[in-house]
Amino acid sequence: MKIEKKSSLYDGKSKTLFETNHSDLVIQYFKDDATAFNALKKGQIRNKGFLNNSFSTHLFLYLKKLQIESHFVEKLSEREMLVQKLKIIPVEVVVRNRAAGSLCKRLGIEKGKVLRPPLVEYFLKDDSLGDPLVGETHIQQFGWATLDEVFQMKQTALQVNQILSSLFEKIGLSLVDFKLEFGKNSKNQVLLADEITLDGCRLWDHTPGESMDKDRFRLDLGKVDEAYEEVFNRLNQYFMEQK
Amino acid sequence: MKIEKKSSLYDGKSKTLFETNHSDLVIQYFKDDATAFNALKKGQIRNKGFLNNSFSTHLFLYLKKLQIESHFVEKLSEREMLVQKLKIIPVEVVVRNRAAGSLCKRLGIEKGKVLRPPLVEYFLKDDSLGDPLVGETHIQQFGWATLDEVFQMKQTALQVNQILSSLFEKIGLSLVDFKLEFGKNSKNQVLLADEITLDGCRLWDHTPGESMDKDRFRLDLGKVDEAYEEVFNRLNQYFMEQK
Repeated sequence: MKIEKKSSLYDGKSKTLFETNHSDLVIQYFKDDATAFNALKKGQIRNKGFLNNSFSTHLFLYLKKLQIESHFVEKLSEREMLVQKLKIIPVEVVVRNRAAGSLCKRLGIEKGKVLRPPLVEYFLKDDSLGDPLVGETHIQQFGWATLDEVFQMKQTALQVNQILSSLFEKIGLSLVDFKLEFGKNSKNQVLLADEITLDGCRLWDHTPGESMDKDRFRLDLGKVDEAYEEVFNRLNQYFMEQK
Repeated sequence: MKIEKKSSLYDGKSKTLFETNHSDLVIQYFKDDATAFNALKKGQIRNKGFLNNSFSTHLFLYLKKLQIESHFVEKLSEREMLVQKLKIIPVEVVVRNRAAGSLCKRLGIEKGKVLRPPLVEYFLKDDSLGDPLVGETHIQQFGWATLDEVFQMKQTALQVNQILSSLFEKIGLSLVDFKLEFGKNSKNQVLLADEITLDGCRLWDHTPGESMDKDRFRLDLGKVDEAYEEVFNRLNQYFMEQK
């Protein structure tokens, strides 16, 4: 199948989407741009586009082996990923194994508190409203997804959590929380969408317990580029050894 | 049963609670003080203490006839209500029949949009955090209430909504939304607590569609005292005619 990149469809904060000569397929181009706090903070992380594309490719392939379907089709180049064209469900699904970030600030929960069972939260994807927290009832009430779709997203997110928590443990990292997005393809199947990268996860190194994720950028912890590269290298090494 | 008022137990924004000579009973004293926007706006509404005590008494008695139990025992004086001493569940339950107030601002929903079925929201009672929105999973996760208690609160809130919506219709008012609080008595029964007044409801007059509730104070609409008195008079008149 020969893929031709056509005009830009959507220019996001960390990726640009391009149409292709196949109406059901689009190309995700991963940028080095990094934003935080609803784009109030902006910067760049060295090689992030390359690292996130490769990282996400590893994880989407790994999840596929374990029966979790995503929009991923193939990695086209260092910064380009071919994916199914989806109608994105405007709800971000966050799974939390330990309290961190906005949860601590919002509800006064102590950072690091273990959450058993994992806490699932939903946020409306709307930059102008600051991606507000919503409940399952809001999602149905305002037609952002059906009850069945919410159930599918939640179940998938919890499965992904189990799979990725185990995987990251093997490379010395705790999966603290992560965000997923979902969309529907032309057959109305709900598929995992977007990306799974350090931009949308919190990973804490077993020792010395440091953040190895976008919190290094958000909170000015330094060694941002190095953390992205280090985690990618560990993951890459792990998959190389499995082959 | 002779009730003696003892020392103050808790001094809130619109009520003070007093211990009594009975360990299971407390007195709610209704003040004229009004606050809004997490107490950033402060003022007084003429006779509010008297009106809210009488209004709440009417509603608690009416709900009791329809099998909805509350902490209400009896009205002791113009501004004093005797109630069961409860352990308050730190979650406010809001039922919305139409979009208004924080819902519109938070999610960009058009004011007045009809919500079918009614939307139930939960807010953590915590002034220092600004009473943040929470979901049923947060409530269980952080131990603010059990799953069974959440279910009881939700069911009761929806029943109260049906009963009060019909009641207010009879006096020319639409019940747009309202807030309830719950607590547990010494037998661990979940009971409706606090008060049901214009401080925690939105009521829109059928014609000309004006707010007849604390929004007149919040939004500087004028005729605040008159609205509280007018709604009380209509309700009082209605109950007089039923006798």
